Amino acid sequence: MSVSKPPSDRTDRKRGAVTLVGAGPGDPELLTLAAVRALQEADVILFDALVAPEILDFARREARTMLVGKTGHGPSCRQEDISALMVKLARSGKRVVRLKGGDPMIFGRAGEEIAACRAAGLPVDVVPGITAAQGAAARLGASLTHRDAARRVQYVTGHDRRGDLPDMNWPSLADPEATTVVYMPVRTLEKLAAQVIAAGLDPATPAVAVARATRPDEEVIAATIGELPAIVAARAPRGPVLVMIGRTLADVAASDAQAGTERTGLRDRRRRA
Amino acid sequence: MSVSKPPSDRTDRKRGAVTLVGAGPGDPELLTLAAVRALQEADVILFDALVAPEILDFARREARTMLVGKTGHGPSCRQEDISALMVKLARSGKRVVRLKGGDPMIFGRAGEEIAACRAAGLPVDVVPGITAAQGAAARLGASLTHRDAARRVQYVTGHDRRGDLPDMNWPSLADPEATTVVYMPVRTLEKLAAQVIAAGLDPATPAVAVARATRPDEEVIAATIGELPAIVAARAPRGPVLVMIGRTLADVAASDAQAGTERTGLRDRRRRA
Repeated sequence: MSVSKPPSDRTDRKRGAVTLVGAGPGDPELLTLAAVRALQEADVILFDALVAPEILDFARREARTMLVGKTGHGPSCRQEDISALMVKLARSGKRVVRLKGGDPMIFGRAGEEIAACRAAGLPVDVVPGITAAQGAAARLGASLTHRDAARRVQYVTGHDRRGDLPDMNWPSLADPEATTVVYMPVRTLEKLAAQVIAAGLDPATPAVAVARATRPDEEVIAATIGELPAIVAARAPRGPVLVMIGRTLADVAASDAQAGTERTGLRDRRRRA
Repeated sequence: MSVSKPPSDRTDRKRGAVTLVGAGPGDPELLTLAAVRALQEADVILFDALVAPEILDFARREARTMLVGKTGHGPSCRQEDISALMVKLARSGKRVVRLKGGDPMIFGRAGEEIAACRAAGLPVDVVPGITAAQGAAARLGASLTHRDAARRVQYVTGHDRRGDLPDMNWPSLADPEATTVVYMPVRTLEKLAAQVIAAGLDPATPAVAVARATRPDEEVIAATIGELPAIVAARAPRGPVLVMIGRTLADVAASDAQAGTERTGLRDRRRRA
């Protein structure tokens, strides 16, 4: 569990600690106040490649920032090495922030890192973050659980340790009354779509791919689950991508078809203001 | 979609607008920077009963704050009345914030309110929030998708419009490789547990109820899905409750059994600092 230390220990600089922090989907405005505070108090920040660079601007000048992966499918530090580095730094008395895109507890490999800290007897706590799916849903104005269209929302990951499509509970993904969010499915999207359609999902079900959600260059590709894989393959969007499937995305798909093009570079009022 | 206005319009005080804001699970530190900004800019804030009172402290002194429901099962404004009030205020030139617990796009009835704004031709945008499940998972140190224990995380709601257990895709909830989060299930938990067990889930599967997640008086009841309904019924926790089910909660359940009692009043380092 999230280890509790009395205040006196917390302010003792000789006592290291680890905080896993959710960096959110990209827009720095979607950081929580707790995340900003953790960044400002950190001696060392170990960050993933998917974390938007602007987010590191919240660190103190004297804080050390270190890129430790992951780029999705590219080369990155091994999980064991990241955990070992985190433990070593905290043991030397540093306040370590482990900064991860989205929320550490949802496809963020937090489990391994929390276990490593606990095994080393180090205080560890977690600051949650807005997921890419939440950021994308907010920008699109699409409720993921609109009561006329979904009774359930579910998150899965589109690739396993080797980058292949994982085995999944296909009937649960084929449920027409669910909204499904698939993380990082670009390489496996064609197979995934074929599987959910084979399991009974209507190929005409709305499906939306969002690349670089909530960033200034956010890219939205709206189609149906039957047609989306070919369109995504042709456009080959850069950066982190998620795919959302379900009738809750119908309005997005409809407005996209009307415009006859993907919506690119949507920005929110906060960036423009 | 989230309507975009050029900056000149945005600063024109005569042009009203609506922003749906996620208030997060309770701890004000879990607000996003964007949420704080929206609260500080609001003329009127329409808030739900589940929103922690401290969060309204971010509003300007001159802002009007109005409680519009929902208390879960108690009396509250009708959804149509809330939407109509929101539209009326924005039409009169007010910057309206509609403040909802958790994330507006996940079981937050945002769909109806966005539709009402669009129908009235009003600018509407959405600021996502940390869900209660994310807040609870962070406090418990439980990764909802630990790769040894879950391939899928899903959210469902424990009650329908009448407060009864909704019909659900039971096989998907009985999947031993999923983490399931059930919102507000207190009244229906016994039936829900019976259904998922009947659909094949092992009654010994870890299950954790969290009341008032991330608040100073957070209450955690860890058990198995077979045993949890009776314990929750006996303790009758106050305030918003969620139940998390799955092998990813095994550590929480184990440490709870060891302690021989629920963990009550867990606080994070930020509150204690």
